[in-house]
Amino acid sequence: VAVALAQWGAEAVHVSRVPDHEIGEMAVGALRRYGVDTRHVLRGGERLGLYFLEHGASQRGPKVLYDRAGSAFTELRTGMVDWEAVLDGADWLLWTGITAALGDGPRAVLREAIEAARQRGVRVAVDLNYRAKLWTAAEARAVMRPLVEGADLCVAGREDADHTLGLASGASSDDPTDPAYEALVRRMREAFGFGVVALALRESFSASRHGFSALLHGGDGPVLRSRRYEVALVDRVGGGDAFTAGLLYGLHHHAPAEALAFAVAASCLKQTMPGDFAHVSVEEVRRLAEQGGGGRVER
Amino acid sequence: VAVALAQWGAEAVHVSRVPDHEIGEMAVGALRRYGVDTRHVLRGGERLGLYFLEHGASQRGPKVLYDRAGSAFTELRTGMVDWEAVLDGADWLLWTGITAALGDGPRAVLREAIEAARQRGVRVAVDLNYRAKLWTAAEARAVMRPLVEGADLCVAGREDADHTLGLASGASSDDPTDPAYEALVRRMREAFGFGVVALALRESFSASRHGFSALLHGGDGPVLRSRRYEVALVDRVGGGDAFTAGLLYGLHHHAPAEALAFAVAASCLKQTMPGDFAHVSVEEVRRLAEQGGGGRVER
Amino acid sequence: VAVALAQWGAEAVHVSRVPDHEIGEMAVGALRRYGVDTRHVLRGGERLGLYFLEHGASQRGPKVLYDRAGSAFTELRTGMVDWEAVLDGADWLLWTGITAALGDGPRAVLREAIEAARQRGVRVAVDLNYRAKLWTAAEARAVMRPLVEGADLCVAGREDADHTLGLASGASSDDPTDPAYEALVRRMREAFGFGVVALALRESFSASRHGFSALLHGGDGPVLRSRRYEVALVDRVGGGDAFTAGLLYGLHHHAPAEALAFAVAASCLKQTMPGDFAHVSVEEVRRLAEQGGGGRVER
Amino acid sequence: VAVALAQWGAEAVHVSRVPDHEIGEMAVGALRRYGVDTRHVLRGGERLGLYFLEHGASQRGPKVLYDRAGSAFTELRTGMVDWEAVLDGADWLLWTGITAALGDGPRAVLREAIEAARQRGVRVAVDLNYRAKLWTAAEARAVMRPLVEGADLCVAGREDADHTLGLASGASSDDPTDPAYEALVRRMREAFGFGVVALALRESFSASRHGFSALLHGGDGPVLRSRRYEVALVDRVGGGDAFTAGLLYGLHHHAPAEALAFAVAASCLKQTMPGDFAHVSVEEVRRLAEQGGGGRVER
Amino acid sequence: VAVALAQWGAEAVHVSRVPDHEIGEMAVGALRRYGVDTRHVLRGGERLGLYFLEHGASQRGPKVLYDRAGSAFTELRTGMVDWEAVLDGADWLLWTGITAALGDGPRAVLREAIEAARQRGVRVAVDLNYRAKLWTAAEARAVMRPLVEGADLCVAGREDADHTLGLASGASSDDPTDPAYEALVRRMREAFGFGVVALALRESFSASRHGFSALLHGGDGPVLRSRRYEVALVDRVGGGDAFTAGLLYGLHHHAPAEALAFAVAASCLKQTMPGDFAHVSVEEVRRLAEQGGGGRVER
Amino acid sequence: VAVALAQWGAEAVHVSRVPDHEIGEMAVGALRRYGVDTRHVLRGGERLGLYFLEHGASQRGPKVLYDRAGSAFTELRTGMVDWEAVLDGADWLLWTGITAALGDGPRAVLREAIEAARQRGVRVAVDLNYRAKLWTAAEARAVMRPLVEGADLCVAGREDADHTLGLASGASSDDPTDPAYEALVRRMREAFGFGVVALALRESFSASRHGFSALLHGGDGPVLRSRRYEVALVDRVGGGDAFTAGLLYGLHHHAPAEALAFAVAASCLKQTMPGDFAHVSVEEVRRLAEQGGGGRVER
Repeated sequence: VAVALAQWGAEAVHVSRVPDHEIGEMAVGALRRYGVDTRHVLRGGERLGLYFLEHGASQRGPKVLYDRAGSAFTELRTGMVDWEAVLDGADWLLWTGITAALGDGPRAVLREAIEAARQRGVRVAVDLNYRAKLWTAAEARAVMRPLVEGADLCVAGREDADHTLGLASGASSDDPTDPAYEALVRRMREAFGFGVVALALRESFSASRHGFSALLHGGDGPVLRSRRYEVALVDRVGGGDAFTAGLLYGLHHHAPAEALAFAVAASCLKQTMPGDFAHVSVEEVRRLAEQGGGGRVER
Repeated sequence: VAVALAQWGAEAVHVSRVPDHEIGEMAVGALRRYGVDTRHVLRGGERLGLYFLEHGASQRGPKVLYDRAGSAFTELRTGMVDWEAVLDGADWLLWTGITAALGDGPRAVLREAIEAARQRGVRVAVDLNYRAKLWTAAEARAVMRPLVEGADLCVAGREDADHTLGLASGASSDDPTDPAYEALVRRMREAFGFGVVALALRESFSASRHGFSALLHGGDGPVLRSRRYEVALVDRVGGGDAFTAGLLYGLHHHAPAEALAFAVAASCLKQTMPGDFAHVSVEEVRRLAEQGGGGRVER
Repeated sequence: VAVALAQWGAEAVHVSRVPDHEIGEMAVGALRRYGVDTRHVLRGGERLGLYFLEHGASQRGPKVLYDRAGSAFTELRTGMVDWEAVLDGADWLLWTGITAALGDGPRAVLREAIEAARQRGVRVAVDLNYRAKLWTAAEARAVMRPLVEGADLCVAGREDADHTLGLASGASSDDPTDPAYEALVRRMREAFGFGVVALALRESFSASRHGFSALLHGGDGPVLRSRRYEVALVDRVGGGDAFTAGLLYGLHHHAPAEALAFAVAASCLKQTMPGDFAHVSVEEVRRLAEQGGGGRVER
Repeated sequence: VAVALAQWGAEAVHVSRVPDHEIGEMAVGALRRYGVDTRHVLRGGERLGLYFLEHGASQRGPKVLYDRAGSAFTELRTGMVDWEAVLDGADWLLWTGITAALGDGPRAVLREAIEAARQRGVRVAVDLNYRAKLWTAAEARAVMRPLVEGADLCVAGREDADHTLGLASGASSDDPTDPAYEALVRRMREAFGFGVVALALRESFSASRHGFSALLHGGDGPVLRSRRYEVALVDRVGGGDAFTAGLLYGLHHHAPAEALAFAVAASCLKQTMPGDFAHVSVEEVRRLAEQGGGGRVER
Repeated sequence: VAVALAQWGAEAVHVSRVPDHEIGEMAVGALRRYGVDTRHVLRGGERLGLYFLEHGASQRGPKVLYDRAGSAFTELRTGMVDWEAVLDGADWLLWTGITAALGDGPRAVLREAIEAARQRGVRVAVDLNYRAKLWTAAEARAVMRPLVEGADLCVAGREDADHTLGLASGASSDDPTDPAYEALVRRMREAFGFGVVALALRESFSASRHGFSALLHGGDGPVLRSRRYEVALVDRVGGGDAFTAGLLYGLHHHAPAEALAFAVAASCLKQTMPGDFAHVSVEEVRRLAEQGGGGRVER
Repeated sequence: VAVALAQWGAEAVHVSRVPDHEIGEMAVGALRRYGVDTRHVLRGGERLGLYFLEHGASQRGPKVLYDRAGSAFTELRTGMVDWEAVLDGADWLLWTGITAALGDGPRAVLREAIEAARQRGVRVAVDLNYRAKLWTAAEARAVMRPLVEGADLCVAGREDADHTLGLASGASSDDPTDPAYEALVRRMREAFGFGVVALALRESFSASRHGFSALLHGGDGPVLRSRRYEVALVDRVGGGDAFTAGLLYGLHHHAPAEALAFAVAASCLKQTMPGDFAHVSVEEVRRLAEQGGGGRVER
């Protein structure tokens, strides 16, 4: 999320903790390369959390093998991060359910950060990001429900609200036009007092072809529905982060409908390139959002 | 076939002959890595048979260039293999039409092996595997018809029965529901006394997209028809072998309908990954066979 | 174009200019490898023109970054090329709108070449090849209209005629059966006195999937329409050149309808392989043109 | 060590513990490929121990970054390994100081293994293998001194005896002919009752060029000194393991002087190839040991 | 130079100009990754200057092919750079003879920068960096002599002083102890009023093996002579820049003799790794400078 | 040899036979790329001869595994090659002992070629090129002695004359100044009536470092001795061919002493680059021959 926002001209600060060794520095450098402010990445701990990714194709889904046990990040404790400095002048604090899944230390730091943000009038955004290999739905609900309460923006995937908040869509299919999804968005706002809710609706026809669209609801208006993209996937990892980055950028610069269109287009484009990062300019995202994407050569 | 079965927990013995040099050892090691019993791979001869594969895409089909002339395997002669040891405790002997295409020596060894299997009550399976670049249909029929006679399992592709056994389907299209294919399966059993016949029905829409399904017929029941997968191909080579491995595994552990479902799912998954081997677990195959494959990420 | 024709048995002479250094020689060697006659590639100048290509996928189109400023080729001047030797025994002179976009020197050399061809009865073919990153439509029209006048063959893409000649199709969609395209072909011949016009009709559904077909009009007959291929793209670059090569080969050896079929099939196959060159034999092109392409394995 | 011995025809059993996931299986397969018996590699735990290696050159030494915390192997506990089955028919049990550095569990398993070996008359070999990034010399001495007591073979590098056993060579230089090294070998045998001691004497002129020789002492004879090789290094990692494998092979098949010559030659050859494994035949090692190595082409 | 200094904890600002396109951004990102302040890298122009490097080995020297004509950097003009902001708080301004070779624009900008530095009391350092493929010695002398006058630090290679300043060493060999080199260093200071002169003495035994040492002279002391390293080269490119970075770092933190030792060690280490950048920590450089480099493994 | 000569401006015709398939065409294209005239490379046969090369390092020598049995080339028969066309206007016919090792067909074609050359006054050169993996010394002598008789140029390595002609050097060491080598050269001329003899004297200190020098004797003068190069090897394969190419080029353009210097320098440079071909210009070879090679960077 930070890489995308920094490339789009925002000041993006990433808070993390990596070991003070060559592999840790490589990770920090990979963020700094794209202009992310890494001054608040702490050094310490023994190992960098890793994961192994097997790309999928057709009927074979991608597979993630987490190797995060004992990572420097899981050892994050309250008092380590200088939240005053981090949040100074910030518009948003964004956190994710993956951090909450990593143990008591990271959870306590999340509470500390959310508290600090509220005191300074910094808005809070959360991406629910449920990961079944890191915790169970029961554990997630117990931890996440109090943490997300009152977030200014809540970003969720189709099943995150169920696993994380205990709000099932009740939809009978993946069809993004199923009215159950609109109802879910409304229920999420009501139940947790979210300012804005964004629900990403991924349709997984196969590991090579997805549908991607989203709903957005904030204020008193109707639930907004984005255009739907059918994507020939290159790498779906990072698609959710590009969506969240697009929302933060879009809500800052545009009206909600345009923000939603921008976020969905950014996510679509990310999924057409390898790696975690959305190497795409604001202009390229806008062109897709406004004109659609025939994939014509530019030359 | 042996690699898939060994990964699934079966004891798989591979019989072959490779030169006693570094390249020959690499080939043996590639099998041993996955748990195949390679003690019956003989050493001798001057060269390892090779082939060059050009992957296809869209309207351009893949192309195989055989470079097997004078290979160690073509020099296989009766008396070289210790069939008593190979077949000791075995359930199945599997052979393929490709071996029969490689000359008089390999053919005589096939006869020797089939005879030895029958004497010990080991069931015999054959994959017809017709290869037009290795021999003509006339040659194949002359050699194969007596060899396949009475096999306990015969695996065939859509046109193998015609080229190899002289039994044309008479189907007017590639549509797998054409009743001519069911009729063909019955005629194969009648004409050659096969215990079970499995017919793989590949629909080649392009080199990038295939349909894959199969028929199975054994005992007194109806001809069974599998689910049909539409596959975004990564590498079609090895798809037939994964199907055969799936049949042998499935017929050992399951009723025929589940065996067929397992075999078709195993083949489908193989075609979504590069290389000859089906790197896929029993559980992954079963999950696809039972739940279908939306290609969702596991994380 | 020259590489394709040389591989198909034609004598193809490439005229160009590269610096007298290692990178220049590598470029010449890459042509010579496939049998192109490179004796008329001049040496001189400081740098080789380059371009950077970002492949596209799905909604993200490919992108070309030209780095041709100051290249050896842009410094081409009249009198440098020995047109008498180049054109000796030639059937066709082929030139492209890209050369015309590179400045006054190359334009003057084009005029010199066209003049020399006409004096010797060598037919002239032009591929309009409009490139928006090299010049504007207004500039292109001013230069190209007099240059193309009376060409024996004019090859154009869907929008080239508008940008380069000032003849818009007026079609309301990309549908290749829109009658506006047939009308455009007729207007091109009338307005510029072309012997034959070939119009390539690319439909860009996404950067991963294109439709490709073409129209051909020459003599007194009707406008011919080719079969339409739906291509799962590997690399669309070079697809236009393969089409032009196919036309020149086809018009030399066949009647117009077969020439068109050959050209469209050659272009389709090129788009299924990486790189600029059409590594495909006459027999493979013919097989696709005659039997269609199911992408079956040859083995 | 096991890979080298298996390639040389010995039955080599590797005892370890890896997670029951794809990366764990890849590690096991890498051993099995070369014929190592992997039936006693246990499955369990969360992660596979890793290390990152930066190759060195000239004045820049190679660097190892351990990422072994929390690995499946560190969780090894007594009772997990079926030593009776492992040691059945074995000549030697080989263990290494690295295992002892990994915590109380692995240390207890070492004690269990050594005890089991002694009860069955299986000889015990130890490679001291001190690693400063895993523990301090003080820790190593406290753990290792009782464990190594009475080993039938002790393999050590130049400084291992000091860091691990508390026996410093007192040599004033790296010169392998310094009499202090011979004295050290004798003191090691006396102090710990080793049957045979082998001391590898690496001279590190730079990360690209090493001298390699060794001393061997057993029985009542003199301390044997090997030929000295000056190696243009490709990868020094695995050089010690090839030396140990060579000793075990050599002591089984040859007199001590030839065993030493074989071991030093095997280690030298390993250091001329990338990776951890000594891909070299008995015949190739012998040829170097007997004729020296001019590196002539074989063709 | 900037990358090395930034990794060593200095605030390093790089001033340059790159095109506003993807390739330009990649270049900027490559600097930012290592912590260089890139806010003063201007955007504009058509192309990024390139060069092609052929690595050498043994008797075959490396070869550089410049492709810098028309680059964005050559179009640098006075007034473009905000020197006030760049130099604010700076200790040093470093410039190089390569910039001076690129034309009147860059030269004028150099004059502007040097003037601005002097006005603010920022010290000026120059690396003479003569490149025979960019200009002749006569041209270099005419431009460089007035520009370097009075620099606080002048860094030169063995022949730079001759080609660039017109001061030949008169040494009869490459032997770094030839007294002519000490005399040259003194003459350079006298003739141009340099505060400090550093002379790098590279001995090119072959493209695979170099000697590297240096002289330093400043203040009233004797000419200092560094240790001499014999380097098994991995990539000599960037060795001079690492030397200059080491001098700037060393002169800031240490006495001259230690500064020289640090600079020569940093350069030595750079030459043992691929690429332009010195990926090496202050501690690693110091360890080599103080203890010498046997290239032992750290583990 | 042909590639080197073609790059140096000679007309080099290569005569061979490759299968009429994609791999065969790739081999031909690889020669054509560098300007070799490939019009006399015949098409036919089933397979292309291959070999596998394992690069060596330090004490581990490189290893070649031939896979040439049944190759298209071994099936070459008299009458297939149009020697009249091949030799038209030629100065030299060059053949090698490897061809003679490949069987009766190739040998008969060699006789045919040598006869045809003599009739037309084309000089004949032979590179003895003994390969122990292709035939024994006894076989080689029986075939080669009559074939080489009276060659205008005979090129040999240190042991080729013994294995191939039965003339042992009797030298007691590899020292190239051993007088036995001069005597051998004289005996070769006397015994077989060679016009010129060139003897390459490779000293294999290790697989990473060779000495390379040569002797040349022709006419009535003394035996000429070249400079000796000590080479840090990148790839020794092709070093002999570069030497032969250098001799043919040198004897055509220069006096014998310069021809020898050119040939030895060309071979030295080849050995510093990967692959079979000597990618080096006449000017680069001359510079090394005249000035020696310090491996300095050109920039």
